Amino acid sequence: MSTTDEEASISTRLEPESYGLTTAEDIRRRDREAKESKRLRDTWRKIQGEDDWAGLMDPMDPVLRSELIRYGEMAQACYDAFDFDPFSRYCGSCRFTRRHLFDSLGILDSGYEVARYLYATSNINLPNFFSKSRWSKVWSKNANWMGYVAVSDDDEARRCRLGRRDIAIAWRGTVTRLEWIADLKDFLKPVSGNGFRCPDPAVKAESGFLDLYTDKDTSCNFSKFSAREQVLTEVKRLVERYGDEEEEELSITVTGHSLGGALAVLSAYDVAEMGLNRTRKGKVIPVTAFTYGGPRVGNIRFKERIEELGVKVLRVVNEHDVVAKSPGLFLNERAPQALMKLAGGLPWCYSHVGEILPLDHQKSPFLKPTVDLSTAHNLEALLHLLDGYHGKGKRFVLSSGRDPALVNKASDFLKDHFMVPPYWRQDANKGMVRNTDGRWIQPDRIRADDHHAPDIHQLITQLHHPSNLL
Amino acid sequence: MSTTDEEASISTRLEPESYGLTTAEDIRRRDREAKESKRLRDTWRKIQGEDDWAGLMDPMDPVLRSELIRYGEMAQACYDAFDFDPFSRYCGSCRFTRRHLFDSLGILDSGYEVARYLYATSNINLPNFFSKSRWSKVWSKNANWMGYVAVSDDDEARRCRLGRRDIAIAWRGTVTRLEWIADLKDFLKPVSGNGFRCPDPAVKAESGFLDLYTDKDTSCNFSKFSAREQVLTEVKRLVERYGDEEEEELSITVTGHSLGGALAVLSAYDVAEMGLNRTRKGKVIPVTAFTYGGPRVGNIRFKERIEELGVKVLRVVNEHDVVAKSPGLFLNERAPQALMKLAGGLPWCYSHVGEILPLDHQKSPFLKPTVDLSTAHNLEALLHLLDGYHGKGKRFVLSSGRDPALVNKASDFLKDHFMVPPYWRQDANKGMVRNTDGRWIQPDRIRADDHHAPDIHQLITQLHHPSNLL
Repeated sequence: MSTTDEEASISTRLEPESYGLTTAEDIRRRDREAKESKRLRDTWRKIQGEDDWAGLMDPMDPVLRSELIRYGEMAQACYDAFDFDPFSRYCGSCRFTRRHLFDSLGILDSGYEVARYLYATSNINLPNFFSKSRWSKVWSKNANWMGYVAVSDDDEARRCRLGRRDIAIAWRGTVTRLEWIADLKDFLKPVSGNGFRCPDPAVKAESGFLDLYTDKDTSCNFSKFSAREQVLTEVKRLVERYGDEEEEELSITVTGHSLGGALAVLSAYDVAEMGLNRTRKGKVIPVTAFTYGGPRVGNIRFKERIEELGVKVLRVVNEHDVVAKSPGLFLNERAPQALMKLAGGLPWCYSHVGEILPLDHQKSPFLKPTVDLSTAHNLEALLHLLDGYHGKGKRFVLSSGRDPALVNKASDFLKDHFMVPPYWRQDANKGMVRNTDGRWIQPDRIRADDHHAPDIHQLITQLHHPSNLL
Repeated sequence: MSTTDEEASISTRLEPESYGLTTAEDIRRRDREAKESKRLRDTWRKIQGEDDWAGLMDPMDPVLRSELIRYGEMAQACYDAFDFDPFSRYCGSCRFTRRHLFDSLGILDSGYEVARYLYATSNINLPNFFSKSRWSKVWSKNANWMGYVAVSDDDEARRCRLGRRDIAIAWRGTVTRLEWIADLKDFLKPVSGNGFRCPDPAVKAESGFLDLYTDKDTSCNFSKFSAREQVLTEVKRLVERYGDEEEEELSITVTGHSLGGALAVLSAYDVAEMGLNRTRKGKVIPVTAFTYGGPRVGNIRFKERIEELGVKVLRVVNEHDVVAKSPGLFLNERAPQALMKLAGGLPWCYSHVGEILPLDHQKSPFLKPTVDLSTAHNLEALLHLLDGYHGKGKRFVLSSGRDPALVNKASDFLKDHFMVPPYWRQDANKGMVRNTDGRWIQPDRIRADDHHAPDIHQLITQLHHPSNLL
């Protein structure tokens, strides 16, 4: 029997021939990528913000664009790998082992090795941020996976694609629930009070971010050291290992979306304030934070201190993010106001840092023009907007052929006629698998030695040792 | 680093040592199954209801129990294989091709080959029953997959497990949404009016079920013939093929849950009324309907006519099904009343047919005692209850080691401490896959020649030909 008319009428979708999704375009794109890769090797210091990205954003520099997408995807990996399911024993953890994070996510040529997973304790005053299992027997009662430290691998360095050895730090934020914003205490406190090595008590940051970054729970195997201690010891170790190698340059790049963007700014600052971006021989390693939909973090002195230290911050934002255009149903009535606070209505003492790259989702012919708060805040959508951005007032044309279907992973942002299911990212059978007896079980997952490592105990002592002070 | 205390505290779940879930029990079970299989070969006519299951239900006959579970699983396959996702292009279809239905569902030794898929048109007055895609370009605008006709394979017959060649018909009902019940017109009409070959106009059935079974849409490739025509032509073809083979006996078994149970009764009756259960040589093939949570279908004359024709019906029900103990949130205010109508409050003219096997979910130590309407109606839960049932007042002990986790496939019925996620049955990424270009797409699925076949056109003519009349 031949194919029916009804079947014939089903055409492939998501292939408008303009906007850069054709095959011919794909070929040109690959050529361009090859050239850009060559350019990155020569220009990576500018791409990392050496000149505050002057002249690189309008028109949009293609190398900067693809680097912003690449680091954005490293932040996105924190969502894709996170176990949000309250009915999972591993809710709040990373679904994949450290060594297989990128390939488990289908990122086969990341060029990075994950050196450490980062955890934070939920024993702080942000009850709506953390994911908790409904069950009583769980991998950890109070810890949440918060991201990772990765380092570009030898093969990558050899191929010189990046032009240097890159230490990348990625922080997880929140995908859809924005209620955590309402939990922020709207209270700036001196970073020195939370253990930062800052000489000036006038340098202040939002207390919620500080607590998340510096608090610990000595009874918990995953957060007995603070996220701060975890990240600093790892950066220190990697800088010591690679910092003074012949003919090798280093960069430190911190990335994060939403609350993860706040942590990115905080930790980039912290690394520089600690002087960890200096090698034994005194070489200074550039420190850059790329943030996506990130909130304000500290006061004007915080901003100034970051500038003094030479830390570069580029904030990618959707202009429609953070202002309640059409309040989402999922938000409680407090959240939009809290969001407003962070967005524009924060006390004057809060200050954004670094440069901004404002994007507008209404410029993309793929996206619904009117969406709720959390949708406008979506990271995958930002990466899509980056892909189509060529400068102020310029037409939206996808540069890389990056799949627009990714936008709907955890949102309902794509226009309906592209026929991509909303919120399509999910595990088969919620992660249940049949064991050899034919029973459906949640497989055991966490192995501490695969998540931690190398041992933090010794490193942390070094970190706090006086000889480490600048 | 060694395994942490927290991890060690995660024990395996769902293994209470009583209730028949231990390994030793599994071994005994397999021994028992082997014996029962031998018994089935000798007693299959009784198991199919030759003596109206007298003496087989209290105490519960182990062969009858395992057969009821087996046919219940054939009905369950209609849910597990159905595409409910309104954002799928194939919403309302079967997710798997006919030839791979059972193995796609992980049923590797079903012993059956699916001979035909059954479709119905949604152009009838049951708007809440059918699943429809949100998209405009779809596999069919008006058809829904309704089940299948299967026949036990040569290998199976040779091994004599069943003791006969079995033609099995399975009808899909509804898993969770019960709103369709409110759409029933509460209107009995003569089955002869819908094309049944019934001599007596006093034989009546609910008009909604009749329409679903007999309506067609000539503009649709999947429902240009009614479900009735599809099932009758296929049964006729299979009976003609196998009916008069030497040393081979035949059975026709119809199974269905909920609305599928109504269709099972209707089609079992129809097959017998049409005389399709007689071979050319005049041998009579037993016709049996096993229904699970099935509603009343017709009037007292309908029941009597079924009995006259020798069709055997066994209805497995949860006693707590159909009566609003604690109305579910998902139900609109009309549904519980409509459900009550079907359950007990229907006009006296409606009558149940056949024998009943009443089960009680409060007897299972695995299940929450208090649940909403649709949960009490759940088919997987019924199969679990069957597995533990040994007779009135007898202790609940699982017989087969059938995995209780299956209960939560599409419900939240298992007690929390078993730590099985509710509603865990779902496709990875809603069926989206990455194609060779790295794009996420919904793969093409339907192939008419795989779903249909053999050609119905010629068969339908034979069906209506006078020579076919008894």
